[in-house]
Amino acid sequence: MMNSSRKIILEHDDGEFSSSNTSSSTLLDPEEFRRQGHMMVDFLADYFHNIQNYPVRSQVEPGYLKKILPDSAPYQPESIEEILEDVKRNIFPGLTHWQSPNFFAYFPCISSSAGILGEMLSVGLNVVGFSWITSPAATELENIVMDWLGKLINLPNTYLFSGGGGGVIQGTICEAMLCTIVAARDQMLEKIGRDNIGKLVVYSSDQTHSCFQKSIKISGIRLENFRAIPTTKATEFALCPKSLREAIQKDIKVGLVPLFLCATIGTTSTTTVDPLHPLCQIAKEYGIWVHVDAAYAGSACICPEFQHFLNGVENADSFSLNAHKWLFCTLDCCCLWVKDPNSLTKALSTTPEYLRNKASESQQVVDYKNWQITLSRRFRALKLWFVLRCHGVVNIKKFIRSHIKMAKNFEGLISMDERFEIVVPTNFSMVCFRVSPSALQKKFEFVDEVRVNEFNEKLLESINSSGVIHMTHTIVGGIYMIRFAIGAPLTHYSHITNAWDVIQNHANVML
Amino acid sequence: MMNSSRKIILEHDDGEFSSSNTSSSTLLDPEEFRRQGHMMVDFLADYFHNIQNYPVRSQVEPGYLKKILPDSAPYQPESIEEILEDVKRNIFPGLTHWQSPNFFAYFPCISSSAGILGEMLSVGLNVVGFSWITSPAATELENIVMDWLGKLINLPNTYLFSGGGGGVIQGTICEAMLCTIVAARDQMLEKIGRDNIGKLVVYSSDQTHSCFQKSIKISGIRLENFRAIPTTKATEFALCPKSLREAIQKDIKVGLVPLFLCATIGTTSTTTVDPLHPLCQIAKEYGIWVHVDAAYAGSACICPEFQHFLNGVENADSFSLNAHKWLFCTLDCCCLWVKDPNSLTKALSTTPEYLRNKASESQQVVDYKNWQITLSRRFRALKLWFVLRCHGVVNIKKFIRSHIKMAKNFEGLISMDERFEIVVPTNFSMVCFRVSPSALQKKFEFVDEVRVNEFNEKLLESINSSGVIHMTHTIVGGIYMIRFAIGAPLTHYSHITNAWDVIQNHANVML
Repeated sequence: MMNSSRKIILEHDDGEFSSSNTSSSTLLDPEEFRRQGHMMVDFLADYFHNIQNYPVRSQVEPGYLKKILPDSAPYQPESIEEILEDVKRNIFPGLTHWQSPNFFAYFPCISSSAGILGEMLSVGLNVVGFSWITSPAATELENIVMDWLGKLINLPNTYLFSGGGGGVIQGTICEAMLCTIVAARDQMLEKIGRDNIGKLVVYSSDQTHSCFQKSIKISGIRLENFRAIPTTKATEFALCPKSLREAIQKDIKVGLVPLFLCATIGTTSTTTVDPLHPLCQIAKEYGIWVHVDAAYAGSACICPEFQHFLNGVENADSFSLNAHKWLFCTLDCCCLWVKDPNSLTKALSTTPEYLRNKASESQQVVDYKNWQITLSRRFRALKLWFVLRCHGVVNIKKFIRSHIKMAKNFEGLISMDERFEIVVPTNFSMVCFRVSPSALQKKFEFVDEVRVNEFNEKLLESINSSGVIHMTHTIVGGIYMIRFAIGAPLTHYSHITNAWDVIQNHANVML
Repeated sequence: MMNSSRKIILEHDDGEFSSSNTSSSTLLDPEEFRRQGHMMVDFLADYFHNIQNYPVRSQVEPGYLKKILPDSAPYQPESIEEILEDVKRNIFPGLTHWQSPNFFAYFPCISSSAGILGEMLSVGLNVVGFSWITSPAATELENIVMDWLGKLINLPNTYLFSGGGGGVIQGTICEAMLCTIVAARDQMLEKIGRDNIGKLVVYSSDQTHSCFQKSIKISGIRLENFRAIPTTKATEFALCPKSLREAIQKDIKVGLVPLFLCATIGTTSTTTVDPLHPLCQIAKEYGIWVHVDAAYAGSACICPEFQHFLNGVENADSFSLNAHKWLFCTLDCCCLWVKDPNSLTKALSTTPEYLRNKASESQQVVDYKNWQITLSRRFRALKLWFVLRCHGVVNIKKFIRSHIKMAKNFEGLISMDERFEIVVPTNFSMVCFRVSPSALQKKFEFVDEVRVNEFNEKLLESINSSGVIHMTHTIVGGIYMIRFAIGAPLTHYSHITNAWDVIQNHANVML
């Protein structure tokens, strides 16, 4: 009995019941919202003006905020003015400024006015579109913009509502992967029996995003049956079709059941593109579900010059990209298309009495709750609609191409300094580079790969600690490389050249 | 070969590269954002002013939007003014207005100025707090407000960071359930062997939210091993401890392994409260993980008079509530607390090289990516912080109590009209009622339960079709009842009496 840990409060709350009707005691007064909303817009506009002045990567120590904030929630209301002051004073130092023009870390999560406005509208309306009837516009606009976007990246018609497939907006790729794995799993277990879940095998390269492994774990598929097929520099770290076939055949030989392949367009470490065409053909031979993860690079396929990367997707089963990465929607907005929506809804539907309604039973409508993990869902289609309309396809192409051009420029700068090298080809807007072994040989007596890696790690930490620019790293094929990912919404060419100056300066000190 | 379905576009895009530098070709111009942001705030404030004038439940037909919108995304940019006009003209008719004061359907998803402002700030900053280092403030503020809220509802210290447990903000209860099921599953399979996933059994009442069943399916646990234990009117549809024990013993006898119990504080159909204390004691005897789902009613426990419902939670393992339901945060904001964060992180951690960093390796920080399904996560703690501070605990209690008082008033109105009856006790702010069999006996020759149900179903559809107010239904114990859920942010006493008038008027016509 641990009841003692729960203090029973027997306070007299009379005073609370009779509390006077001040403005702060109203949940949503339109005029008070107007006043405060304008204040918040100005606060954000000012933030965007000043964003360059903050250290890009937060410089605080673990636990900094606990030392500043009170231990419990305030009993009396506080003004929005006070709270915004606290945001500046206490929250800002603890932010890593993802929208800073000097942010080159991870993959960017690129915001835009249009994306913010669309999300503001969604937040304000605050409708919950789990079934069609709970807000038909939320479902239907999502149907429409997902077809729009699918057409823009030249996805085969079979993925679109207009072609018998369909798209859904989820939060992140991890959800998209989990949903499709579960759909594939249940389809297969129906054939081979529920008891055989331990026999299912899933495949990807060793460069596939870690959320694939996580989705597998969550779905109850054995982690021992996850084949992260090794890649090599010879194939620029792409999944080799021959290796895939060998792995499949080996598994079949011992009585296992190949289920699922995740192929990637633009891996996280090096933006490698897996060869979809041959991979999907092999998968098709063995009845394997193919999911194509194009989280970052998928948006680039709006530009025709990148659409060849999708050759072969007509033989895959599902495809996803994060519109919050490179399509100017704010977090979160993961676009998932499937050829066979039934496979999703069969695995994910539940219809309790309290959600039954005529529209759903007529089967004339999409109920997105059956296309995803969660029941409740935000009206995310608004921001995608705003982004596509506010910018127009013409400008979206321009933005994407300008990011890619900046990456080329950055590559050009690197290539003029013989102390540095590009480690893998730049496919999109992210450049992987390092201080080269030869540069270190001039300075140090003994130089091996470990030493080179250590040096680059120290260089990166030195730069990030300065707070002037922020980049991250990866290690692939034993090589530690610095990732320079371009796309923050306020980044211009001058920020690229400045960043290069910063990198060179830090290297100058260390070399 | 379905290659023909992918039209290869070979356009000359020269014109696009040289497109002039108009304002619409900038992703995020601070002054343009300021201008548009103010416009959006005014748009929303006006919406809140006029929200009563729209039909609460959308009156459109399936497919209405496809007939209006173009087939593909616009090539040229469009102005925000045009888009907002389209929102009014084309989107508004397709909305079911969840924030309307006449919305009494489902459980409300109660917004507030404070919640909207907090989300606006989160959207504007657009940081991605998957690891501590990616924005320390996002993680630390979440740690702090989750402890604040845990204390407010008098959750035992063992659920708080300050007591060795901890809280995390996820999207919805379905995610919270899935995470805890997976944590419990992996803990158990480590003991009994991975091959035994087919032996795991999970329990709840037949009144538990359908997302529990969905989470079970996703996690790979056999649906045949889900015991939805029948409830009866005698226990007001609460899970009976004796039935639970019998079910467990029966399963053990045939070699199955009891794993998980989901108990509910405030079921969706009737806001029933399962008796936590005896249920948790039984679960403890058998080593079963108990998750307490208080999605809707958990927030009421901020008021001391409801905290007794949590007696026994000290013997559970995890607890969740949706702050987007009754704690005035906009969608989505699900608060999950666990006693043993290690059980979560053990099941959900992945640490690829590209996310490794010193802070994480020091183990001094929380990396929330390991506490949830997804990697990327929004800065949701801001809106909870805003809500708690802007209103203060004093006003939050007042809001909750005013909703409950309105429900009592509505009950009072019903009880004065003998044609109606309350079907189950009103525990919180939702009233389940119907036109009584005796009222129908006066009108119709032959009246049985089927007839009574049909009549109430028709009555509800007649009311909802009018668009004046919106309610939903449930069927429990064979009884069709109308659910009247109170809490929309602009609802006042006058809306309750008006709603009652509407209900009576429709009944007058039909009786």
